[in-house]
Amino acid sequence: MSTTPAPDNDVRAYVSAHRDGFLGELAEWIRIPSVSADPERAGDVRRSAEWLAAKLRETGFPVAEVWETAGLPAVFAEWRAAEPDAPTVLVYGHHDVQPAARADGWRTEPFEATPSDDGARLYGRGAADDKGQVFFHTLGLKAHLHATGRSAPAVHLKLLIEGEEESGSPNFPALLHERADRLAADTVIVSDTGMWAADTPTVCTGMRGLIDGQIDLYGPDQDIHSGSFGGAVPNPATEAARLAAALHDADGRVAIPGFYDGVVALTDRERELFAELPFDEESWLRTAHSHGAGGEAGYSTLERIWARPTAEVNGIGGGYQGPGGKTIIPSAAQLKLSFRLVAGQDPEKVQQAVRDWVAARIPHGIRHELDFFGATRPCLTPLDDPALQALVRAMSKAFDGAKIRFTREGGSGPAADLQDVLGAPVLFLGISVPSDGWHAPNEKVETDLLMKGAEAAAHLWGELAAGTRTAGGEEVQQ
Amino acid sequence: MSTTPAPDNDVRAYVSAHRDGFLGELAEWIRIPSVSADPERAGDVRRSAEWLAAKLRETGFPVAEVWETAGLPAVFAEWRAAEPDAPTVLVYGHHDVQPAARADGWRTEPFEATPSDDGARLYGRGAADDKGQVFFHTLGLKAHLHATGRSAPAVHLKLLIEGEEESGSPNFPALLHERADRLAADTVIVSDTGMWAADTPTVCTGMRGLIDGQIDLYGPDQDIHSGSFGGAVPNPATEAARLAAALHDADGRVAIPGFYDGVVALTDRERELFAELPFDEESWLRTAHSHGAGGEAGYSTLERIWARPTAEVNGIGGGYQGPGGKTIIPSAAQLKLSFRLVAGQDPEKVQQAVRDWVAARIPHGIRHELDFFGATRPCLTPLDDPALQALVRAMSKAFDGAKIRFTREGGSGPAADLQDVLGAPVLFLGISVPSDGWHAPNEKVETDLLMKGAEAAAHLWGELAAGTRTAGGEEVQQ
Ligand SMILES: [Zn+2]
Ligand SMILES: [Zn+2]
Repeated sequence: MSTTPAPDNDVRAYVSAHRDGFLGELAEWIRIPSVSADPERAGDVRRSAEWLAAKLRETGFPVAEVWETAGLPAVFAEWRAAEPDAPTVLVYGHHDVQPAARADGWRTEPFEATPSDDGARLYGRGAADDKGQVFFHTLGLKAHLHATGRSAPAVHLKLLIEGEEESGSPNFPALLHERADRLAADTVIVSDTGMWAADTPTVCTGMRGLIDGQIDLYGPDQDIHSGSFGGAVPNPATEAARLAAALHDADGRVAIPGFYDGVVALTDRERELFAELPFDEESWLRTAHSHGAGGEAGYSTLERIWARPTAEVNGIGGGYQGPGGKTIIPSAAQLKLSFRLVAGQDPEKVQQAVRDWVAARIPHGIRHELDFFGATRPCLTPLDDPALQALVRAMSKAFDGAKIRFTREGGSGPAADLQDVLGAPVLFLGISVPSDGWHAPNEKVETDLLMKGAEAAAHLWGELAAGTRTAGGEEVQQ
Repeated sequence: MSTTPAPDNDVRAYVSAHRDGFLGELAEWIRIPSVSADPERAGDVRRSAEWLAAKLRETGFPVAEVWETAGLPAVFAEWRAAEPDAPTVLVYGHHDVQPAARADGWRTEPFEATPSDDGARLYGRGAADDKGQVFFHTLGLKAHLHATGRSAPAVHLKLLIEGEEESGSPNFPALLHERADRLAADTVIVSDTGMWAADTPTVCTGMRGLIDGQIDLYGPDQDIHSGSFGGAVPNPATEAARLAAALHDADGRVAIPGFYDGVVALTDRERELFAELPFDEESWLRTAHSHGAGGEAGYSTLERIWARPTAEVNGIGGGYQGPGGKTIIPSAAQLKLSFRLVAGQDPEKVQQAVRDWVAARIPHGIRHELDFFGATRPCLTPLDDPALQALVRAMSKAFDGAKIRFTREGGSGPAADLQDVLGAPVLFLGISVPSDGWHAPNEKVETDLLMKGAEAAAHLWGELAAGTRTAGGEEVQQ
């Protein structure tokens, strides 16, 4: 690389100086109600894409295009480094937002952007998820150029900002496959997650995968009388319950043979680092709206939600569910299950293990059908990955040299599609905090953290370019 | 008793001679659509009660009254024997019927009474359940008087014909309590069941009892995301399933401690007699609309449905039940259970056993509520009961000396209320056969069997009067 890394204070000074202008533009974007789930907002989602493409061109991206899909449009932008051998980085985010209405409990207009009196927070749908976290990349990139004196980023930089993430990304895999050549990258940076807390900066190192599906069980051809027949024929509601109850053993482990095959175990170091996080179970339970913690024996709550595969009953139904009683043996019952997967598990193999397990447990007299809705692979970056180390260094600079800790994401998302289709490792750069209220009324973002995000992005391109040079030559122990 | 029992052929001759008139009057009754479940038919239910009371007066009953309830009216009639020390017998049946509409698959008008071409069958709603079986008592009583030359029955005869049986008899227990003095009886004869088959006359010796209720399980205060929280908090749908799955052990026995306390075991003789019945499992499965038999180990299908207590899941529900998937941990789940009880089980003790068992199984973090809808006691007459023996002799005379076998009824009904409130043993005199299609389209009754029912009733009053004389003095082995 041809330039000297700039002193940190150049980045910070630039970001601070442009804070108000940045927040003003973000507010403009928040005012576009780009709700992908609402067909009446399709025009707004398009307007949001066009607004973003224009802003990216203003930022300096030589290429900034609205990409059509079978559904709502995405935005693609590209700015190549001067150095042909620089690594290629793809930033992922989304410009669509969750639905929001004042009546849901918002104290401000959701599609206004309303600062708190002290300016520390900006309220509005998408402030954190994901417009704020996409948009800080524009400020970060300008700070990067300014502080390094470059006229192009230190990496070949691409952005792909989806328009249907809040609707389950139905057309995203197809888009990735179709545009795989233009999207090719060495590293993917997903900016659609968060940190542990404002005073505990963290980097997410992986997401769980997911398979989910439905088992239909059929017994008698019609509901039959439990007096006349009770006790002498199999009951599909009982069989659905037996399947659900047999999912876990007494230790809370998933009891399906083969389920854990290949699971990448937590390292001692990862467990130590998780344990160092200031976790308060009571406050976590409040976030979970739950009244007790419990799960796989031998693991902490954080390990259970971040690093262990699970089986959950999402729905169960069969027979009479109205008021009072009805003494029937139901004709049919249904079970909706989801399985979160972790690195090392192959969704298709787990699907087969579930199929085999279910088939072996269905008794004579019951017919069953099993359908899977989809499969999302897990992703995980090892702690010693050079690109992850570069991200940690960039975050640490933004957070005044603070120790950067590691989290994972228990959910599952398009990150895995990016990893799979592009064949590139996925890193997560996010500065949102749990109190930001994703998908809830009164979503907000901490404006100081938006600036930290911009700073981290400003540092990241240089760190990645440098990290790539040294990759393999330096043993990083974290 | 002052009279000599008449030769059988007098009864048969009388019944045969009055067959056509009897069927004509029954048809008139069937044309009154006394559907208790349909509020728009309330007037027809009343018309049915008044029609029946008038017919009973015509038959000769000095007392025949329409009795009001909080719901639809019942009919009460009384005709005392000349002998003050004669036993008192109460006949129970119902004059209301199940709903029926041509569109449900009826080949004839359900509220017409349509004979088959050969006259062997009479089609119409209520033909078997229960108008035909109530009405044969009028013909039987007249035959009894004619054949014995009596001017009053050999027993103090009472009839109580309910108007809400097909709606769950909501006001029946209250009516029994209110009118207990007028209803007092030594023996109750329920004519609202059937026989094994036209060529296998049987007498039912008991009904199972019933408790049913609902368990509500509450987990998170709202549905929560299975990605963010899955594997770390208890899931109420899983817990509902675990309860349902734990109801039975591997042998199909109910696994609730104390459930079997007091259960009157089948005697070897009862088991032998059940085993002698010409039971065809394939045809039984067709009746059950089921594709496999199964239940408590060590018992036959008939034993399971007639003589063993059971636990059944009538309904289960929780979480997402719409199309496709939704990756949630549901906030709540619900389980509707019913337990059939057999002689020796106390419904209230079983309810307590269920409460204790559920409470002990609910994990930390789940709240539950358990409500029972009701409790019906089981009833069972020992094979050596003198009144049962009298009924067997009466049936045998009607069926040309055929061996009368024994069945039980797996369902639960007002018979138990009669037994409990009146403190009298309950016997079952019914001639309906499984193909009669109770509660189904194209309900019918076999007209020859109606005549057998009338003959059995005609013989029964003398047998009961005689049986009561010899009760305790004669050891009957059947
Ligand atoms: Zn998002
Ligand atoms: Zn009936």
